[in-house]
Amino acid sequence: MLPWSADLAGRIDEHVISSELLRGNPLGDPHERPLWVYLPPGYEDEPARRYPAVYVIQGYTGHIAMWRNRSPYRQPFPETADAVFARGEAPPAIVVYVDAWTAYGGSQFVDSPGTGRYHSHLCDEVVPWVDGRYRTLAAPAHRAITGKSSGGFGAMITPMLRPDLFGALATHAGDSLYELSYIPEFGKSVRHLREYDGDIWRWWDDFSSRASFTGEGDQDLLMLLGVSACFSANPDGTVELPFDPHTGVLRPDIWQRWLGWDPVRMVPRYGEQLRSLRAVWIDAGTRDEWFLDIGAQAFREALAAAGVADDVIHFELFDATHMGIDYRYPLSLAWLCQRIAPDG
Amino acid sequence: MLPWSADLAGRIDEHVISSELLRGNPLGDPHERPLWVYLPPGYEDEPARRYPAVYVIQGYTGHIAMWRNRSPYRQPFPETADAVFARGEAPPAIVVYVDAWTAYGGSQFVDSPGTGRYHSHLCDEVVPWVDGRYRTLAAPAHRAITGKSSGGFGAMITPMLRPDLFGALATHAGDSLYELSYIPEFGKSVRHLREYDGDIWRWWDDFSSRASFTGEGDQDLLMLLGVSACFSANPDGTVELPFDPHTGVLRPDIWQRWLGWDPVRMVPRYGEQLRSLRAVWIDAGTRDEWFLDIGAQAFREALAAAGVADDVIHFELFDATHMGIDYRYPLSLAWLCQRIAPDG
Amino acid sequence: MLPWSADLAGRIDEHVISSELLRGNPLGDPHERPLWVYLPPGYEDEPARRYPAVYVIQGYTGHIAMWRNRSPYRQPFPETADAVFARGEAPPAIVVYVDAWTAYGGSQFVDSPGTGRYHSHLCDEVVPWVDGRYRTLAAPAHRAITGKSSGGFGAMITPMLRPDLFGALATHAGDSLYELSYIPEFGKSVRHLREYDGDIWRWWDDFSSRASFTGEGDQDLLMLLGVSACFSANPDGTVELPFDPHTGVLRPDIWQRWLGWDPVRMVPRYGEQLRSLRAVWIDAGTRDEWFLDIGAQAFREALAAAGVADDVIHFELFDATHMGIDYRYPLSLAWLCQRIAPDG
Amino acid sequence: MLPWSADLAGRIDEHVISSELLRGNPLGDPHERPLWVYLPPGYEDEPARRYPAVYVIQGYTGHIAMWRNRSPYRQPFPETADAVFARGEAPPAIVVYVDAWTAYGGSQFVDSPGTGRYHSHLCDEVVPWVDGRYRTLAAPAHRAITGKSSGGFGAMITPMLRPDLFGALATHAGDSLYELSYIPEFGKSVRHLREYDGDIWRWWDDFSSRASFTGEGDQDLLMLLGVSACFSANPDGTVELPFDPHTGVLRPDIWQRWLGWDPVRMVPRYGEQLRSLRAVWIDAGTRDEWFLDIGAQAFREALAAAGVADDVIHFELFDATHMGIDYRYPLSLAWLCQRIAPDG
Repeated sequence: MLPWSADLAGRIDEHVISSELLRGNPLGDPHERPLWVYLPPGYEDEPARRYPAVYVIQGYTGHIAMWRNRSPYRQPFPETADAVFARGEAPPAIVVYVDAWTAYGGSQFVDSPGTGRYHSHLCDEVVPWVDGRYRTLAAPAHRAITGKSSGGFGAMITPMLRPDLFGALATHAGDSLYELSYIPEFGKSVRHLREYDGDIWRWWDDFSSRASFTGEGDQDLLMLLGVSACFSANPDGTVELPFDPHTGVLRPDIWQRWLGWDPVRMVPRYGEQLRSLRAVWIDAGTRDEWFLDIGAQAFREALAAAGVADDVIHFELFDATHMGIDYRYPLSLAWLCQRIAPDG
Repeated sequence: MLPWSADLAGRIDEHVISSELLRGNPLGDPHERPLWVYLPPGYEDEPARRYPAVYVIQGYTGHIAMWRNRSPYRQPFPETADAVFARGEAPPAIVVYVDAWTAYGGSQFVDSPGTGRYHSHLCDEVVPWVDGRYRTLAAPAHRAITGKSSGGFGAMITPMLRPDLFGALATHAGDSLYELSYIPEFGKSVRHLREYDGDIWRWWDDFSSRASFTGEGDQDLLMLLGVSACFSANPDGTVELPFDPHTGVLRPDIWQRWLGWDPVRMVPRYGEQLRSLRAVWIDAGTRDEWFLDIGAQAFREALAAAGVADDVIHFELFDATHMGIDYRYPLSLAWLCQRIAPDG
Repeated sequence: MLPWSADLAGRIDEHVISSELLRGNPLGDPHERPLWVYLPPGYEDEPARRYPAVYVIQGYTGHIAMWRNRSPYRQPFPETADAVFARGEAPPAIVVYVDAWTAYGGSQFVDSPGTGRYHSHLCDEVVPWVDGRYRTLAAPAHRAITGKSSGGFGAMITPMLRPDLFGALATHAGDSLYELSYIPEFGKSVRHLREYDGDIWRWWDDFSSRASFTGEGDQDLLMLLGVSACFSANPDGTVELPFDPHTGVLRPDIWQRWLGWDPVRMVPRYGEQLRSLRAVWIDAGTRDEWFLDIGAQAFREALAAAGVADDVIHFELFDATHMGIDYRYPLSLAWLCQRIAPDG
Repeated sequence: MLPWSADLAGRIDEHVISSELLRGNPLGDPHERPLWVYLPPGYEDEPARRYPAVYVIQGYTGHIAMWRNRSPYRQPFPETADAVFARGEAPPAIVVYVDAWTAYGGSQFVDSPGTGRYHSHLCDEVVPWVDGRYRTLAAPAHRAITGKSSGGFGAMITPMLRPDLFGALATHAGDSLYELSYIPEFGKSVRHLREYDGDIWRWWDDFSSRASFTGEGDQDLLMLLGVSACFSANPDGTVELPFDPHTGVLRPDIWQRWLGWDPVRMVPRYGEQLRSLRAVWIDAGTRDEWFLDIGAQAFREALAAAGVADDVIHFELFDATHMGIDYRYPLSLAWLCQRIAPDG
């Protein structure tokens, strides 16, 4: 394969969607958002045919244009996804690439007074917009959502909250089991914040005024600030950290709000919704830096305990860290498409 | 200095103490325990003089004979402690080296049906034994306890439980703020246990049958088993892990028992006892692998919140990991001795 | 700044250049190569004006399309380079983005029977091609070359070999002082090759048949194979490794061929050429994984010993690893442009 | 097993040997040196029996008293060695523990104007001293030498230099293949020396004036200084570093002196001596931090190339780093004793 580019068998339509729900969001992020809709090969040839749809969301700090990034000896996911259909490895589907970036790096695909109404934007604006313009099979049985890391988290929770929309999901190393994935990060963050007198806003000002990610704590603190804005903002949009930055002691009420968004802990509350799903793909690398392999195990066991049938679940741990696992995405895509195809 | 040995200005009496409280302990460990009593220079010359006493306890997997271990370019603590007195850096004191080793590597200096009554052994057997045979100032104002890591933990909790015995303490990187110090270890342990089907006893059998610490998980799993035996054994001595070894999910009731032994969380319950202390030394390295620097900060803040006066506290973070910090011990020893001296 | 894209003040012309020198290259790589030419703001407004030119080359595994990759909170170099001119931080220049990718990940910008004639392609095809189509100041005093890592290496050696073309250079963490940068890698590679019976071709077959970079040794072995193909291929194109893969013992004749390409060792041989340069920027991160900070120091000292004047040199070490240092590129670009401007 | 101590089936005689060769050594180290002689069980019972002898030397920074150090769940080598004989796993032998510590941490068991005549001390003083006082089989066929790390190095070279004394050896992760084991250290040392203006003596003064090993570079710089004193001291005792501390560039003449002591490179010069050996044990951990596993491979291959018969060699790589491999020592001890026994 040549490294520079590849032709698609299908095609990608690049849109901008104007969101009423994101208009005036607290971070001042654009309410006009890029949106890509991939149409599989043959879409134009069968003008009456309707297709299932897979919504693709991204990990923390991801934004839609990063799907074009090229890595050596690998193809971007939009190309490997296209190849799944071009090679006939799965029934054709429409693939929708959604952007939920914010100034803090992400939205966790939830509605928050700290960042904006990204969950509602996805469910109540993007989905109808796509259904209105493309020949989708507009039913949850034929609509899936997939993502990695924070995107995996979004893929886990969105069908719980909106089983009327999404009937299938794939999570690659999705955020879960928060004591293991987040608490070690808090320890690092306390240390990083020492040079900022424990004040994350002093860090943010510093971060915003220099070359990004040149400070040792930049990655950790960005995620801390951003996820706090998603999970524990006050109604007025001010952000609460889940621990005392001077001592590392958890603030129980705030931490509880985070735990309220832990997929492992959400499963029992959404048993009925989860039992309605047709397909759940769960995977992670066994050396994931955030222990998300263990989070995946815990999520899978929680599904079992909630009565989700084994035959709708694909569970797999593989030898990898959290990084460089994009080669997994076409695997789950093909599997999902088999499950959400009209006769799947 | 020559590396092989050093003469002491004082002397060490090596005893064996026969413990009624440890007889028949659940692990079958010896109830006859080594005990060293160091007498400072001049002890014999002033036969009527009474001395304060500092009890020294050890970190996990430590046992008394390891105090003799020699490292390049460093002297063992019994020699550097002796030098404190020989150089007149502190008023003379008796130093008592206690052994609380168990087959699982340690006792955490608590009474547990999983390991034995090591707390009571220390307080009700060792202290009176020393007081009965040596010219101590047998009052809490003149009795301190010091240790590192698990020994630091023991040094924090023993005066809380027995302020009638101990009026001063020093903790070097002592176990505290358990969510930060223990939970990341749990994640590692879940992974280590994968090859043992999640059964820590299968690991223990393996560990016991081959060269120790040749397995990647040996250190983590030993501590997990041992601390579980200390903190969460059932009345019949069986051991409960604080998490599900297959999913990493915390078992809330068991974890709560661990948290009951978190010094940070114990402070509010023992405010009166802590306010009676004359001297509290707290330090840790800023890069401690178990975040015990943050634990130290949290413990120090908890003391403040409990009304312990600033002037009885020495708090210090220094540039180090958890390892190789024995050069700190004589610093706290000298400081403690100044505080617990008769006219201190 | 918005993350998705940015408008340029200047413009980029994307070309494909058909190379006679690369036609039939030994790896079967395309002889038609992408080439981007950036024209600064104002280029069209001053049709008689001629401009200096800066040639930009890439690190190992880089190819031209990767210049478009977007990272969170950063802009791609073509945008930050454009901003240098848009903000008036440097006199305007033409910036030429060259592609020298090969199937093994790179060419090191040398002519080799193992990969192809990339050095000659750059010097004898790309430069005249650009000079023929754009209003350049076609003299070495006004032509610079810059790059990072392997691109830094290319930027160091190309003006030595062709001072008639290039009169200035910038190297960011450029390959140099090969005993420090390469030999530790050889040790790792010996280990990686154990599972391939010491046969790098068995690794290559494996690598080519599965998801890339999922093997622990992939990065190291790719670079080993690729650099061997560049530096120590036989006339028939077969590749010699610089060490015995079974024992790690250097093969002196082959290793000597590598050392012949060590910029530090080349400097004395090219003293006259180097003394003709107008500007030499050298930097690296103090924690560079390949010790290229030390290589930078050694290169800078070698220049001094060769009589290159201090006032043409900018030398700087900064706190960083080898990664994420693209924010340095616009700094050297501005500096180079000041030096190679017509009245610089 | 109890952790505190163990009784020996044999016995250890602790001596002090007064060395004429070390008297007045350049570092002012003691010329009276501790020496331990272990006598196997039964030695007293068979007063006419003569025994083979195994000389045991130590790694860098080791000194004889460290053999007493106790680690959790392991016994010191003098005890595990004793157990080899007590359990009848090998024919009985005398085991001689030699001390070659210096103020710089070690002697590499060579004669050097920088440190002293430790090679001659061992060969011409210790060996005759032992033979004169104990019932040894005083012939090379019955005399072996063994060690780890620098001790492994000493065990490799001493029989090459004195085949009239030593007819067998064991090297555990012994220093060899110096480009891989030393050169990466040089890179680190250049960085460490930055804060000392490239002057190792400024570091030494600093190191000598504070708690040792609290500086990040202490370990690396101590070894650099010490090995330089062993391998590249001038006749007047002044020490030459093998590289320019400001640029990392190897100083070829000095580096060549180091390479002259590389066991891999020594083998061809000592082929006849090596072919006279009865037993050569070579092992190392596959993850050795100094690539000494590869050094072991290279040494083993060099022996083969020099005509050393396969059946006198035991070669083994095992899963380990450089640390914690003392459990290997009794394995080689038993094997050596089988080979050097009178009817071995």
